[in-house]
Amino acid sequence: MTGCLTIVGLGPGNDALLTPRASEALATATDLVGYAPYVARIAERPGQRRHASDNRQEIERAREALRLAAAGAAVAVVSSGDPGVFAMAAAVFEAIEHGEPAWRTLEVEVVPGISAMFAAAARLGAPLGHDFCALSLSDNLKPWDVVLQRLTAAASAGFVIALYNPISRARPWQLGAALDCLRRILPPTTPIAFARAISQPDERVVITDLQRAVPETADMSTLVLIGSAHTRQIERPSGEPWLYTPRSLEAKP
Amino acid sequence: MTGCLTIVGLGPGNDALLTPRASEALATATDLVGYAPYVARIAERPGQRRHASDNRQEIERAREALRLAAAGAAVAVVSSGDPGVFAMAAAVFEAIEHGEPAWRTLEVEVVPGISAMFAAAARLGAPLGHDFCALSLSDNLKPWDVVLQRLTAAASAGFVIALYNPISRARPWQLGAALDCLRRILPPTTPIAFARAISQPDERVVITDLQRAVPETADMSTLVLIGSAHTRQIERPSGEPWLYTPRSLEAKP
Repeated sequence: MTGCLTIVGLGPGNDALLTPRASEALATATDLVGYAPYVARIAERPGQRRHASDNRQEIERAREALRLAAAGAAVAVVSSGDPGVFAMAAAVFEAIEHGEPAWRTLEVEVVPGISAMFAAAARLGAPLGHDFCALSLSDNLKPWDVVLQRLTAAASAGFVIALYNPISRARPWQLGAALDCLRRILPPTTPIAFARAISQPDERVVITDLQRAVPETADMSTLVLIGSAHTRQIERPSGEPWLYTPRSLEAKP
Repeated sequence: MTGCLTIVGLGPGNDALLTPRASEALATATDLVGYAPYVARIAERPGQRRHASDNRQEIERAREALRLAAAGAAVAVVSSGDPGVFAMAAAVFEAIEHGEPAWRTLEVEVVPGISAMFAAAARLGAPLGHDFCALSLSDNLKPWDVVLQRLTAAASAGFVIALYNPISRARPWQLGAALDCLRRILPPTTPIAFARAISQPDERVVITDLQRAVPETADMSTLVLIGSAHTRQIERPSGEPWLYTPRSLEAKP
């Protein structure tokens, strides 16, 4: 008996942003596998087994999911945002490549989700309206000099930058060093937004600029958006300004 | 009387990937505004007005939507994929910045959607599992030398690249030139995927590599994914290989 494995993007947290395909995959799974806070977001269903695990156990979690599926279960591996963006999809395929040959015969589906950076961008206006990149600031999975090299390349070439994993207890200084690196490349007035837990009850948005940005504004649930030299701020009579990056380079006044 | 303007991401095309918030915004709008093929995707509703326009009319379309909203309508501007990614959200904010001061008092909501690159990545495996960027290959909105500069910067720094707007009748040679540029930087075996109309009935996926890729494989509805030197292909006993980019730089064998 062979089961199936679905890697489901839960989106930013609000059910209004969860796709029907993701809802269906969660409803029909016999087993849910994921990081405990993400599994906890999902309503319990009678007979459905829940396998919640700790942070930074991605490969072991992926192997557990693959073993369950190979034994016949309909497994849903859950991930926040989009599962293909610094999340469980890559961990599952890595486990498959280096694991049991039989795992390559499994039916595997990745269900995309609304990523943190698109939820943040939508909340702010359209800061990703021109070329952009997504970069994880974590140096657990790559050397710090590669992070700096990529930041430098992206900012110098005019990409807007979405920074994932900006800060954690184990990585307290990296965001400050990244901002210092960017200050050597981008104008001091470059817009920066800290977007935390977008679409959830504890959502928080801080819009500032490169000269005033401080790393303490971010926590583990924050996405940091770094504008390009062309990113614009639209002031409003009331409410927060909107941020957007013009589609055209010529549109800069 | 003041209306509201919602910029709605329709996702890649399949209703199973349309968020509940997007469905709701489409159902409650008095007026739909958008590029004709996207408006045509939406079921007609009695009393709802449809304003379909031609391609490359983004700013005029945005102004029309803003005028309708300012006159009291509940306007939904529709965009394929995510409206913040090379789509209508940036056009609307550009129109606001340079338009009527009253437009800054409008209630504007951006509803994120599943972008073409995440739909493509999910279909292929997890090619965006490490740092990546999104780049429009169109030189209508920026000079061609900027496109080449950004391609070079992104590929040299190890980003996976999602190429939007790879080719059109008016831009027939740019994708070939981009592939030539990338051949000077990346190994010939770098995986490349052409992902067309993902999730729709006429979906087509071609997986190849940099030495064999030809621009004719792409059309206007194709997203081209360029791997990094670390992107891996997992062969399977039957069916297409999976593509993924390991989360860790050290994971390369």
